[in-house]
Amino acid sequence: MKSLVLYSGGLDSTVLLLSRLAQDDDVAALSVWYGQRHGIRELAAAAKLCTRYGVHRFEVNLDTVGRLLGGSALTDDRVDVPEGHYEDESMKTTIVPNRNMMMLSVAASIAMAGGFDRVVYGPHAGDRAIYPDCRQEFIVQLNQALALADERQVHVVAPFVEMSKADIVRRGVTLGVPFAETWSCYKGGDVHCGACGTCVERREAFELAGVTDPTVYA
Amino acid sequence: MKSLVLYSGGLDSTVLLLSRLAQDDDVAALSVWYGQRHGIRELAAAAKLCTRYGVHRFEVNLDTVGRLLGGSALTDDRVDVPEGHYEDESMKTTIVPNRNMMMLSVAASIAMAGGFDRVVYGPHAGDRAIYPDCRQEFIVQLNQALALADERQVHVVAPFVEMSKADIVRRGVTLGVPFAETWSCYKGGDVHCGACGTCVERREAFELAGVTDPTVYA
Repeated sequence: MKSLVLYSGGLDSTVLLLSRLAQDDDVAALSVWYGQRHGIRELAAAAKLCTRYGVHRFEVNLDTVGRLLGGSALTDDRVDVPEGHYEDESMKTTIVPNRNMMMLSVAASIAMAGGFDRVVYGPHAGDRAIYPDCRQEFIVQLNQALALADERQVHVVAPFVEMSKADIVRRGVTLGVPFAETWSCYKGGDVHCGACGTCVERREAFELAGVTDPTVYA
Repeated sequence: MKSLVLYSGGLDSTVLLLSRLAQDDDVAALSVWYGQRHGIRELAAAAKLCTRYGVHRFEVNLDTVGRLLGGSALTDDRVDVPEGHYEDESMKTTIVPNRNMMMLSVAASIAMAGGFDRVVYGPHAGDRAIYPDCRQEFIVQLNQALALADERQVHVVAPFVEMSKADIVRRGVTLGVPFAETWSCYKGGDVHCGACGTCVERREAFELAGVTDPTVYA
């Protein structure tokens, strides 16, 4: 099995990358720069961790697309990153329109050209509330479209889609994931802010998992 | 109806753009640079024609993706552009893996952010033989995935999917399309080569439509 992992350098996708490395014959990573506010921090984490684990990492630049996606807190500096719980309605301002379909389509193209069997990405159960493109029903339909898009068959799989983020932390412990080196915070500052939706979710996941959180928060 | 037209500057998409301008309230164009060999010629045509018709044109750069899509005659200089009939098996080397899903996903993101109702693109019946992502069944599935990808509903439509290229030329005549200013040739030289699959198809379409072909061929 040859897997291309959509890899942001975040907690979830780092656990995903290490779990694929433990199970698949051949693993590469793909990071996408789409002008996300926290991109410099997350892609630096991705680069560092791929070097450490000897994983070949592709990086593509969709910044010219990102600039046209005004209105999302992740791509538009005029929109503040919301604070609060990750599943709050207010977190919808962090939606980047159709983001995962765009990234997964790009990943599928690269996977087809490179002879990969599948594209693996890391949505989890906590993403369901706010992000439609992290739901199993979306993935099913996306695969049906992909099956008709090209003779080369590449499938998208999301192994963590039914798991909580606490489950992912527990899985990460068994894999020896260096959590402190992963990046979640949407604000992309020097350290994790501790207050935005994804920081709140990150803290909560360690707490629920009963694992010491090594993250430095502001 | 607010339409975003995937616009290459080619014959088909120019007829499509002018037909949408004649029918829709609001029309913009989106051109995609993905490192295609003939990109400089086709995007120059797109820019010029949008200026002439007063159409706002977005352009996005997916070149970092294109560089990873080796093996296609359109994105890999080591692969020759095949000559012959557009529906010949040999034309499969011009397939860019999953190209339309990638471009349509990007277009859908931009459409959602910009409040467009739909993304319009111009595959026709002659594309069916070689390009899976130009077939109606693909479009149906893609729309099912898109419907689940985001709360903002954008549909992909392909009004020419059952038409021949000769039908498109006839439609273009009724719309006053300046055919000579559109660009098809995959080789991207100074003038159309006249021998690659898309040039052969272009010549044949004018002949079948009984319309004088104003294209200069080498």
